[in-house]
Amino acid sequence: MAKKEVKSEFKVTPWEVTGEVDYEKLVKQFGTTLIADKVKKKIEKCHPLLRRGIYFSHRDFDKWLEAHEKGKKVSIITGRGPSEKMHLGHLVPFLVAKSLQENFDCEVFIPISDDEKFYVKENLTFEQALEYSKDNILDLIALGFKPGKTFIFQDFVFTDIYKYAARVAKRMTYSTAKAAFGLKPEQNVGWSFYPAMQAAHILFPQFVRGAHISVVPVAIDQDPFIRLSRDIAEHPDFNFTKPAALHAKFLPSLAGGAKMSSSEGSQIFLSDSADEVKKKINKYAFSGGQATIEEHRKLGGNPDVDVSFQYLKMFFEPDDAKLAKIEKDYRSGKLLTGELKAILIEKINAFLKEHQKRREEAKKQVDKFLFKA
Amino acid sequence: MAKKEVKSEFKVTPWEVTGEVDYEKLVKQFGTTLIADKVKKKIEKCHPLLRRGIYFSHRDFDKWLEAHEKGKKVSIITGRGPSEKMHLGHLVPFLVAKSLQENFDCEVFIPISDDEKFYVKENLTFEQALEYSKDNILDLIALGFKPGKTFIFQDFVFTDIYKYAARVAKRMTYSTAKAAFGLKPEQNVGWSFYPAMQAAHILFPQFVRGAHISVVPVAIDQDPFIRLSRDIAEHPDFNFTKPAALHAKFLPSLAGGAKMSSSEGSQIFLSDSADEVKKKINKYAFSGGQATIEEHRKLGGNPDVDVSFQYLKMFFEPDDAKLAKIEKDYRSGKLLTGELKAILIEKINAFLKEHQKRREEAKKQVDKFLFKA
Repeated sequence: MAKKEVKSEFKVTPWEVTGEVDYEKLVKQFGTTLIADKVKKKIEKCHPLLRRGIYFSHRDFDKWLEAHEKGKKVSIITGRGPSEKMHLGHLVPFLVAKSLQENFDCEVFIPISDDEKFYVKENLTFEQALEYSKDNILDLIALGFKPGKTFIFQDFVFTDIYKYAARVAKRMTYSTAKAAFGLKPEQNVGWSFYPAMQAAHILFPQFVRGAHISVVPVAIDQDPFIRLSRDIAEHPDFNFTKPAALHAKFLPSLAGGAKMSSSEGSQIFLSDSADEVKKKINKYAFSGGQATIEEHRKLGGNPDVDVSFQYLKMFFEPDDAKLAKIEKDYRSGKLLTGELKAILIEKINAFLKEHQKRREEAKKQVDKFLFKA
Repeated sequence: MAKKEVKSEFKVTPWEVTGEVDYEKLVKQFGTTLIADKVKKKIEKCHPLLRRGIYFSHRDFDKWLEAHEKGKKVSIITGRGPSEKMHLGHLVPFLVAKSLQENFDCEVFIPISDDEKFYVKENLTFEQALEYSKDNILDLIALGFKPGKTFIFQDFVFTDIYKYAARVAKRMTYSTAKAAFGLKPEQNVGWSFYPAMQAAHILFPQFVRGAHISVVPVAIDQDPFIRLSRDIAEHPDFNFTKPAALHAKFLPSLAGGAKMSSSEGSQIFLSDSADEVKKKINKYAFSGGQATIEEHRKLGGNPDVDVSFQYLKMFFEPDDAKLAKIEKDYRSGKLLTGELKAILIEKINAFLKEHQKRREEAKKQVDKFLFKA
């Protein structure tokens, strides 16, 4: 106990991530569970984000898998606070949800919290909030979720959600919401209420389909919100099953920062042209390579910090053998940073070309994906 | 300034009324305006509650009258937190609203805050809240509001109200709501949000009909909520007209207490039978008469504190000449307490008989009165 660890301090809250995160330590702090080999085996055919360890921790996901194995109903819930336009980082939980839907053939619920964005962004108008939602919904549908098994709803359109939020709100004190969401008295009462709305989103599959286990894929910093919903779930008013969670590590931004964020101006937007992607990757993607070609050939690159490689690993190169070869060649110095970037650029552009086409098609499919009471 | 008034202290907040209320002093404290003769003249054909001074104070009601005179749109908004069953006291603002509608031919909006009751009453279930609303709506329709000009909605049914509440919520801080509503951190976040919902109710006529002046009849203790809505109305997000208000004095309970309340067990419910009414009035109605018939004949009664007389004055004897005669006879001792009570009993029972008949008819008319987007 007296042994003092010399490690950089880190801090993870839903609003702030600082220092170099020690994920094993964080799991202990939060009281979550590392994804064990037994669980990993059951998701080895899922999206790279799941099977390559970006999702590394969980709550009750083992129970979710067991329920599915026993033929019981399971579902997935993952929401989105709509923004002007979506970037690659925004896709993470949805790619996971889609992959789980494909592998376990279950319903996916996608609440769009236009109310949250409206409360939090001082200058966002009500009409803009609605527009952002409509825009983002097209990107989500374009990902290829199953119609008839995927249910999207906006809080400001499917206003029946207020009835569910009210039932949750009755069982959540301001103190509790304040502690989990860091509420301040000078913030508006929309913020005060939103914790109940968010918990209603997480519990929504059970509100409309009866008690069953649902899983929420989130970044690990969002776990306090999951805990809040799990507490509410067990209230005698509901008698729901505690929702399960899958926790992701923080994804690096293009520039290599700890948490992907759209405020850096170097994001790959889903609407970017092939040329924009090429420019952004070449200009911003943090490189694990050496300063000169000569040095790189001699010393090799470091794929562990190279953002292009990480993007291939997380999103764009599902083939394990191909990825291993890229990693090996980059580490040995055979593959140059420019070449690695070229591989990524091609992959991203192939993905975006298809995505943008499907997004156009999605415009005619919206109604098929909207939740109806 | 040094002169010390020897007067009983009083306190008026939305949650507490203590001491003998000095209404003139209260008007100064609250910054409202006494209803002047000029205004009184314009409502001299209205319900006794208005023309006999029970409504004694206002905010901008003179502007409301002027707008109407100029042919501009005006409206009335008065809500109800639904309860198991309604009693006579609950009717006060609705009798006033109905009378204003008749005299000024304008729209009336009636929000039913089943959400508020649900948040505040620990053991009230969601289903019960809905039931109470349905029940109370029948009583409101039975009062004889104009169909096509009267719009009732329940927060838990017309959930579109959430969109309006959200827009208000964005412009109301928790501090502000806390100050006006006395919020406590151990209360649920439904309570935290409700101040925005209530303001959305008060501003609802303007949300759906555009900016115009609307008046809210309330008991004077509710004025802090009016002030809150008036502040919100002027926010650039809305650019609404500050809603006007009409303030009532506190009505005596049957037993003569300062504020009519359903917790005393001696209320006249709208569902009471003729026999129940007779028993309650005879048993509970606080008398201004003397202890014995002989003394009463000699000294006379005091109609100012006699609840039966007050009920006739406020509700049941619209004919000024008849009321004056009853007052005179009671004061002189010619009319005995038992006789006065008999007059009231007959009046109430005639009213309730008609009301109960109309309530049955109302069951088929509900749809005509529900607000539709």
